[in-house]
Amino acid sequence: MVPSGGKKVKRGILQRLDAGEVVIGDGGFVFALEKRGYVKAGPWTPEAAVEHPEAGASIVGVNCHFDPTISLKTVKLMKEGLEAARLKAHLMAQPLAYHTPDCGKQGFIDLPEFPFGLEPRVATRWDIQKYAREAYNLGVRYIGGCCGFEPYHIRAIAEELAPQRGFLPDASEKHGSWGSGLNMHTKPWVRARARKEYWESLSLASGRPYCPSMSRPDAWGVTKGTAELMQQKEATTDQQLKELFQKQKFKSS
Amino acid sequence: MVPSGGKKVKRGILQRLDAGEVVIGDGGFVFALEKRGYVKAGPWTPEAAVEHPEAGASIVGVNCHFDPTISLKTVKLMKEGLEAARLKAHLMAQPLAYHTPDCGKQGFIDLPEFPFGLEPRVATRWDIQKYAREAYNLGVRYIGGCCGFEPYHIRAIAEELAPQRGFLPDASEKHGSWGSGLNMHTKPWVRARARKEYWESLSLASGRPYCPSMSRPDAWGVTKGTAELMQQKEATTDQQLKELFQKQKFKSS
Amino acid sequence: MVPSGGKKVKRGILQRLDAGEVVIGDGGFVFALEKRGYVKAGPWTPEAAVEHPEAGASIVGVNCHFDPTISLKTVKLMKEGLEAARLKAHLMAQPLAYHTPDCGKQGFIDLPEFPFGLEPRVATRWDIQKYAREAYNLGVRYIGGCCGFEPYHIRAIAEELAPQRGFLPDASEKHGSWGSGLNMHTKPWVRARARKEYWESLSLASGRPYCPSMSRPDAWGVTKGTAELMQQKEATTDQQLKELFQKQKFKSS
Amino acid sequence: MVPSGGKKVKRGILQRLDAGEVVIGDGGFVFALEKRGYVKAGPWTPEAAVEHPEAGASIVGVNCHFDPTISLKTVKLMKEGLEAARLKAHLMAQPLAYHTPDCGKQGFIDLPEFPFGLEPRVATRWDIQKYAREAYNLGVRYIGGCCGFEPYHIRAIAEELAPQRGFLPDASEKHGSWGSGLNMHTKPWVRARARKEYWESLSLASGRPYCPSMSRPDAWGVTKGTAELMQQKEATTDQQLKELFQKQKFKSS
Repeated sequence: MVPSGGKKVKRGILQRLDAGEVVIGDGGFVFALEKRGYVKAGPWTPEAAVEHPEAGASIVGVNCHFDPTISLKTVKLMKEGLEAARLKAHLMAQPLAYHTPDCGKQGFIDLPEFPFGLEPRVATRWDIQKYAREAYNLGVRYIGGCCGFEPYHIRAIAEELAPQRGFLPDASEKHGSWGSGLNMHTKPWVRARARKEYWESLSLASGRPYCPSMSRPDAWGVTKGTAELMQQKEATTDQQLKELFQKQKFKSS
Repeated sequence: MVPSGGKKVKRGILQRLDAGEVVIGDGGFVFALEKRGYVKAGPWTPEAAVEHPEAGASIVGVNCHFDPTISLKTVKLMKEGLEAARLKAHLMAQPLAYHTPDCGKQGFIDLPEFPFGLEPRVATRWDIQKYAREAYNLGVRYIGGCCGFEPYHIRAIAEELAPQRGFLPDASEKHGSWGSGLNMHTKPWVRARARKEYWESLSLASGRPYCPSMSRPDAWGVTKGTAELMQQKEATTDQQLKELFQKQKFKSS
Repeated sequence: MVPSGGKKVKRGILQRLDAGEVVIGDGGFVFALEKRGYVKAGPWTPEAAVEHPEAGASIVGVNCHFDPTISLKTVKLMKEGLEAARLKAHLMAQPLAYHTPDCGKQGFIDLPEFPFGLEPRVATRWDIQKYAREAYNLGVRYIGGCCGFEPYHIRAIAEELAPQRGFLPDASEKHGSWGSGLNMHTKPWVRARARKEYWESLSLASGRPYCPSMSRPDAWGVTKGTAELMQQKEATTDQQLKELFQKQKFKSS
Repeated sequence: MVPSGGKKVKRGILQRLDAGEVVIGDGGFVFALEKRGYVKAGPWTPEAAVEHPEAGASIVGVNCHFDPTISLKTVKLMKEGLEAARLKAHLMAQPLAYHTPDCGKQGFIDLPEFPFGLEPRVATRWDIQKYAREAYNLGVRYIGGCCGFEPYHIRAIAEELAPQRGFLPDASEKHGSWGSGLNMHTKPWVRARARKEYWESLSLASGRPYCPSMSRPDAWGVTKGTAELMQQKEATTDQQLKELFQKQKFKSS
């Protein structure tokens, strides 16, 4: 999504970043489309690889697999790497809109909730505003989102960075920032929620008292290339499932 | 949304229920529209009132404000009331797609997370399949959803009840039931999630270890009609906010 | 434990209560003794039954099985019952020192954690001070504790009610009230915890992110007298275990 | 505590470890004593420092400040360090009996719950049996516990390692291992808990649905030696408290 504040000649991403613009990206389509019935989950598109600084990339960053907190920690490491190597590149971040403090090195795919039980992990618009601000402060200028991002998350980035970008997104016409649309609610205690401080400091209940707050990922310690991970053309057979359960049993004993 | 399995003359809701059809409803629009930037939160439309059995209603049920579990408990009470009064009526349920085990008598509006921090409470498609089955078993034949329902939640109702309704919804063409689309995933432990038993028994982590699982609602013990709850035309003033905080302080001390 | 502020002739419990004294009880021995290796868990002593008001009991209250919150709610109902029947009796409360918001009608024995996994539910001294104050405000004058109470919990009751009782317990010589012993800690942020407000409002983390906050009790819906609950003299046989698992499986499907 | 299986001449710790004995230690006294009213919290005794391998220590290990999981990870690093330096030393572990997955580098003192709100973090006897086994497998032969350990935790170490040590502790006379004392309970579902598998796999509820599972430590990033951490002889003044709150406010904004 390329937001614009008026009529402009379309410019390339590097031109825009070089000119000091804050670019907002959105890679969260797949999950939203699946939920709306347009695409089928399973054969996921491979995610873009992170380029090495010495390779001369113009934009360096991370995409998908991890939440905003972990992603920004990673970009911070990249930034320090670039500085140590005296290289210059634009920074990019497109994290998940899911909280994944418990995922291992292989990201959210190994979490038991992936991909059809991630609901309790969905970020709020306030989580995303916080992320956008932290990304900006870190020097990231291509600030977007990947799996799990919905239009209102992208709008949250644009609203948080409106002072820096100089304009509010069109979508803000249908949205009072920081809950200000609640100003007219009939219940006074709901009206009192029409404040930045309220949403910023609220600790959200999961509404799931029988559930834990973290999961142990299905981490087998293997990654791309291993025979076990070669894609097969046929659906998993019963025999394969049996071997799989055997393996999991062994792992947890 | 009125799903159909072919060309049909449109019939009224009572005709359809009287004919023994399972009707799927959807009242979840407002929240989805707000998130997509189409409507502005604040002046919410009043929810439909539950009719009293002796009033001769043809359809009796609940809409909005509470989660599937609480809503079905309520419908069960209504059903027992109807039976005790030897009355006959169709049963209806349109709960929230949010888990609200902690809300008081006045529903989710009093939860501190309402309306912009409800994400961790969002039901999964599996939660909704469970709800649809329980509603059906209770005798409910108008089975739908209210705030928080997204298209994939409605599809989950239609899929769960496909054996009873005799057909799958069109949206199932883009969706393998019970995660079967994962059958071809490259990671064997993700392939192993393509099973009903997996999703049915999974206890979902919130990914929010710094958050609680329940909230205390802002219940002031007052309801519609009280002077305090009269809608005012102007936004809340600073003086009103101050009084509000004073009251909350008093309440919690 | 009968606290005393000097040399006194020992008086009976009714004499003391009639004289307006606040009596502190302690029934928490068994659990503490088991943990210290003095007694063996299993053949628990039967808990005292709650007397009916019309039976003319001089002291009415509850003991064991439920947490302070639930116990005081129950005593409140009893008090209202007594008032409605125009009867007078002293009120008594001896709850568990375990939080049991999730237990059913049969109390903590049916919680899956009973009796060797109750640690995360243990009340703090601050929880108990809160309980003591609420019990006092409700009119309870025999205020004690049952399973799970340790000496420092009993001291917490005595400290909270020192203004009403007119003296501090002896054990307070080894304890600064409301954490005041931290006043001299080397770390300033730990020193800052030497305040009532700090401990009163602290929301305690469980340190167990892979665990839920509530459990579903093993409630079979049967109670004392049922054939299933007759004590047998022999240890459970393998055949009985098998039947048990079968039953649990049936229940949860 | 020096366990013994009969009459023996008292031998030194190194003699015992050199002879291949498993020694069980207990440093958990202070917390237990404080709860029983014997000591006053505040001016804590400094914890023993970990010796460096090259210094020629005969026993290398960790004591206090962290939970069993973190402590054993640390001992594993120490063991690898010793092996890399081709040194030989006995390994020792005396962790807390509190779960502290969320504490920073400075340990449990910085957790907001320290020291009077640690109850929900207390380890069960089963947690400790697991720790004892893992410590043994890692090669640790001085296996003990520090703050938070109660007698039944120490007994749990001794019971878990009975096969390796060749005898059960005396305290096991008052305790059926793995809950076997429940074999005679009147409720069949409680009897069914008299099994190792039951307690080993149970995920314990906190009973505190309004509390989070992790806390953010009060980490100021300073440590021993800093002016801020110099112990002062007077209690914290109001002015100092004010400055402290200012600092905390700044930190969290």
